[in-house]
Amino acid sequence: MTTDSHTARDEDPAFALHRGGKLRVESSVAVTDHEGLALAYTPGVARVCSAIADTPELVDTYTWRSQVVAVVTDGSAVLGLGDIGPAASLPVMEGKSLLFKEFAGIDSVPIALSCNDTDAIVETVERMSPSFGGINLEDISAPRCFEIERRLRERLDIPVFHDDQHGTAIVALAAVRNAARVTGRSLGDLRVVISGAGASGIAVAKMLIRGGVGDLVVADSKGLVYAGREGLNDAKAEIAALSNKAGLKGSIETALAGADVLVGLSGGTIAEEAVASMAADAVVCAMANPDPEVHPDVARKYAAVVATGRSDFPNQINNVLAFPGVFRGAFDARASDITENMKLAAANALADLVGDDLSADYILPSPFDERVVPAVAAAVAAQARADGVARG
Amino acid sequence: MTTDSHTARDEDPAFALHRGGKLRVESSVAVTDHEGLALAYTPGVARVCSAIADTPELVDTYTWRSQVVAVVTDGSAVLGLGDIGPAASLPVMEGKSLLFKEFAGIDSVPIALSCNDTDAIVETVERMSPSFGGINLEDISAPRCFEIERRLRERLDIPVFHDDQHGTAIVALAAVRNAARVTGRSLGDLRVVISGAGASGIAVAKMLIRGGVGDLVVADSKGLVYAGREGLNDAKAEIAALSNKAGLKGSIETALAGADVLVGLSGGTIAEEAVASMAADAVVCAMANPDPEVHPDVARKYAAVVATGRSDFPNQINNVLAFPGVFRGAFDARASDITENMKLAAANALADLVGDDLSADYILPSPFDERVVPAVAAAVAAQARADGVARG
Repeated sequence: MTTDSHTARDEDPAFALHRGGKLRVESSVAVTDHEGLALAYTPGVARVCSAIADTPELVDTYTWRSQVVAVVTDGSAVLGLGDIGPAASLPVMEGKSLLFKEFAGIDSVPIALSCNDTDAIVETVERMSPSFGGINLEDISAPRCFEIERRLRERLDIPVFHDDQHGTAIVALAAVRNAARVTGRSLGDLRVVISGAGASGIAVAKMLIRGGVGDLVVADSKGLVYAGREGLNDAKAEIAALSNKAGLKGSIETALAGADVLVGLSGGTIAEEAVASMAADAVVCAMANPDPEVHPDVARKYAAVVATGRSDFPNQINNVLAFPGVFRGAFDARASDITENMKLAAANALADLVGDDLSADYILPSPFDERVVPAVAAAVAAQARADGVARG
Repeated sequence: MTTDSHTARDEDPAFALHRGGKLRVESSVAVTDHEGLALAYTPGVARVCSAIADTPELVDTYTWRSQVVAVVTDGSAVLGLGDIGPAASLPVMEGKSLLFKEFAGIDSVPIALSCNDTDAIVETVERMSPSFGGINLEDISAPRCFEIERRLRERLDIPVFHDDQHGTAIVALAAVRNAARVTGRSLGDLRVVISGAGASGIAVAKMLIRGGVGDLVVADSKGLVYAGREGLNDAKAEIAALSNKAGLKGSIETALAGADVLVGLSGGTIAEEAVASMAADAVVCAMANPDPEVHPDVARKYAAVVATGRSDFPNQINNVLAFPGVFRGAFDARASDITENMKLAAANALADLVGDDLSADYILPSPFDERVVPAVAAAVAAQARADGVARG
């Protein structure tokens, strides 16, 4: 068994690529002699420290602090793997840092924490926050992720962004907006069904409502979420109050009958008959990865537009379309927060990039489209200034 | 005033060099297409995460964790500047990371904490330890630094090293050993006086005793440290029990009369007459920076060997001679701890490098001597294996 799995690793290019990790810290200053050492370290560095002690905002000018993101996790909700703990989550966090660098030139550091408690995570991130210009929360399970992000946003004057929520929500809104456009409808006309009420399901629901979707129903493992359903956590209760205008109860199949859009964020399976029951020109965004809730080949039989989380089908809904540009824009504007308006601006900028090339198989730009990060960053920075959270 | 200091900053090359900070995070894997993304991130990364979840030690192979150091401070004892806080300490922490990289090729990340409480610092470092292969504590004030390091060494199975203590102590022992050799004495013959009972004074005292120095007296701001002196903290009480065989009381001048070695780690001033009262062929290591306790020109009138912390005089006692090689060796051996023997091995390796070139003005190699890091690393790694703390 050990031999077998060793062999399997040896033959898997993902393992070869990960050997030794995916990140390096480089110095941007060479130190080759005493004079260099005396400037970059003692005694020269003491003058820089004293200047920051006297004028705290100089930390943004004379250190990397304002330009470096902590990618923070507790390893409790990693990809589709669940609660695998901090050590096993590190390859994803390094991957996130790699994407920050490759797509937006942003420095970031993986910080996988051994604590799971909400108070402990908030406290720990707050204590290390003097070292970082932004916090990207990653793969922290719901519902703790909501309170952790809320409390950190309140306490810190740097951007805090839970990518599993907002990165997904930004790209999903862009996708739904362009799917509506290509099928000749407005967002306000749509009735959307979201499968999944975890971090991304809740965030996508809020974002679609804020973005102008007419009606929306969320389903969790117990069925449709409605106001007054017993045992709802705070996040689901909030969604219940904002959604499900018709007060639908029961299973997701009930809601899908006649619905315009299905957004799958559950990792579960949705039956072909339920998809068949949707409205004409339906939109299916089945984002579970690697196994979409409805296989795209099945969804295409009934839907006018099909999107997935996979790169081997058209219309990939990939967070990398959002978070690099969002942080780039927030950093460019020296934003103290990432507001809801900034997230909407990011979604709109992303959707707008498709322009006249819009088609049922092209509702989102490619992650490798070099216009994406600059467009999202510019929209986010402009909105930060409009919202009064920019410092530069 | 603001204009003046702005101009002063503009003309100071240290500020020009620090603009934008001194570090960058680079990805060691390029992601330029969907195939690359599918290996470095989802879905490929999930296979690596699963492998680590199944076999935890694989984290050392497939992430950067085992090769990255956290440079942790609370900003409470920064250089000679004192308690300037975490933000103002960042240029020093970045400088430390830069030195780790430039001298030993080691990746490290500055973590400046906003908490000062011993329990809080221990707890925070422990919580973030899944992300790091080693902890370099830096510029944390005494006596908290002693307990913080002790507790972290007990709790973590990775190297924990307070450089202000042990880096200084390693280099000081190497210097004193070679100063004894050049003046024809053995360590056991020496009576040493240490000015300063902070982090470095305590650590140097312990290291010199462990290294074989015959007798030693430590002085703090209240005078000589002796067993039974009222109000001694734990660290000073421990030193009192190990040192001052003659039970000397009173001022440092009392101890310096006839002493063989003065080690200055106080930042204070020592009068010329007190240096004049030392034994023939005295050794003066006046390490306060930038102003040595005794100016080298004065010390040379009485002492056979003079060392300082400065690069513009002979015999610079600089921590950069120690910590890069110590961590390089600990990482090479995959050591779970940095033992006292490993520190002694580092000091001996450093002293031995001087070899036949030994002279009163050359008791230590230059930090830019390319033999230093490999020699220290090899000695530390070998000792880790001998001490049974190596895992590779």
